[in-house]
Amino acid sequence: MHAHPIIDALKGHRSIRKFKPDPIPDEHIRAIVEAAQAASTSSNIQAYTVIGVRDPERKQALSVLAGNQRYVAECPLMLVWCADLHRLELVMEMHNGQLHQNTETLLLGTVDVSLAAQNAAVAAESLGYGIVYIGGIRNRPDDVAELLRLPANVYPVFGMCVGTSDQEPDLRPRLPMGAIYHEETYAEDETLLGAIKAYDETLQAYYAERSGGARASNWSVETASRMQADKLRGHMKGHLNRQGFRLE
Amino acid sequence: MHAHPIIDALKGHRSIRKFKPDPIPDEHIRAIVEAAQAASTSSNIQAYTVIGVRDPERKQALSVLAGNQRYVAECPLMLVWCADLHRLELVMEMHNGQLHQNTETLLLGTVDVSLAAQNAAVAAESLGYGIVYIGGIRNRPDDVAELLRLPANVYPVFGMCVGTSDQEPDLRPRLPMGAIYHEETYAEDETLLGAIKAYDETLQAYYAERSGGARASNWSVETASRMQADKLRGHMKGHLNRQGFRLE
Repeated sequence: MHAHPIIDALKGHRSIRKFKPDPIPDEHIRAIVEAAQAASTSSNIQAYTVIGVRDPERKQALSVLAGNQRYVAECPLMLVWCADLHRLELVMEMHNGQLHQNTETLLLGTVDVSLAAQNAAVAAESLGYGIVYIGGIRNRPDDVAELLRLPANVYPVFGMCVGTSDQEPDLRPRLPMGAIYHEETYAEDETLLGAIKAYDETLQAYYAERSGGARASNWSVETASRMQADKLRGHMKGHLNRQGFRLE
Repeated sequence: MHAHPIIDALKGHRSIRKFKPDPIPDEHIRAIVEAAQAASTSSNIQAYTVIGVRDPERKQALSVLAGNQRYVAECPLMLVWCADLHRLELVMEMHNGQLHQNTETLLLGTVDVSLAAQNAAVAAESLGYGIVYIGGIRNRPDDVAELLRLPANVYPVFGMCVGTSDQEPDLRPRLPMGAIYHEETYAEDETLLGAIKAYDETLQAYYAERSGGARASNWSVETASRMQADKLRGHMKGHLNRQGFRLE
């Protein structure tokens, strides 16, 4: 592949967790949201909403709710991306119908908001900003919903800090392509295990080099730890049910 | 906003449903997948897999399963994007643990695959290809899983046709920004209803102009029709359970 500016920009993504306080002009927010809106959406349903938080007290509250992540308070703009079927409820009422929720509508809103958010991430980075996704917004989703006054049929999927970067993190390698891209049918376990072991070695060397040898870990060790049952936000079903989603 | 090549590219997205048969070189597939892998992923877990289908018979079968969408068979490359916790199951086994599935892991995989796919869409378009997402891959997910030999803890979220465009569709307007972007807290219903009504007028004029007056419809009418309970893929929970996902 020859140099290609858009693909190079995508491949240059790093999550930024330290921001300068410089505010983001309204015209940049508009460009970011317009780019988000241009993403594909299932049957043009547009089942998502993004809430832009710039108020320092509200950002501080979100920072605490997301697991005391300092950069949520420090970034000039915190975007909270929500799967949203409330507008569709209004649409059904306009036409004397009723909104039905099931597993499909949960997936539909979750996919729609993710596609839009990723376009926003690319747009923000192309304007020179750094971003980081905040999955921690699902740590205390009931409190986030109350703080942002989310109505029924809306839930917060993730946050995104946007601002001028104040750090230059390295690019962390990903799994070998063969682990995530398969041709024609799903790969054999043997192939996957080989890719996982190769990646373990890559990340172990990466961690060791960056920590001067102090950090002895690898991907599978870290991931096995992260996927422990007690870390998996077992409250999400209850939250979704309280917000009107039905996992049926 | 001044002209800005990346944001202009994002805002120029159109779904393409008619493709030339020209094959896609391997180096372009590699660039598209590398761009996908560069997207953010929850805690570097990378809970997704993409299966590239180029075999004409398999594409034809997918085309039927996705609701007889002709372009799925006609595009040179059909990508099937899967939420994937199978690799994480292997990782847990490597470390004498066990994979736990709940609503959070379903969301985690669904978000991860969507962020990766949107980067792939942007990369493919930047290489000059057209794309369209295929939600119809969830019409008969059990059959798709069998055709692609998906193991437990993997489900097909959507497809994506990639190829050289053989049409020039217009850009369909989206909801007014005020409907999907709210400042500080969720907007009032009055604001949303105003935006929906304005958008109904916009799309009604758009449809009328493109059809020479023959198509009298608008967004809320079409969307209310699409959100009827019997169209909502009520089989998804059963499919997910059969694949090992637990909506708990």
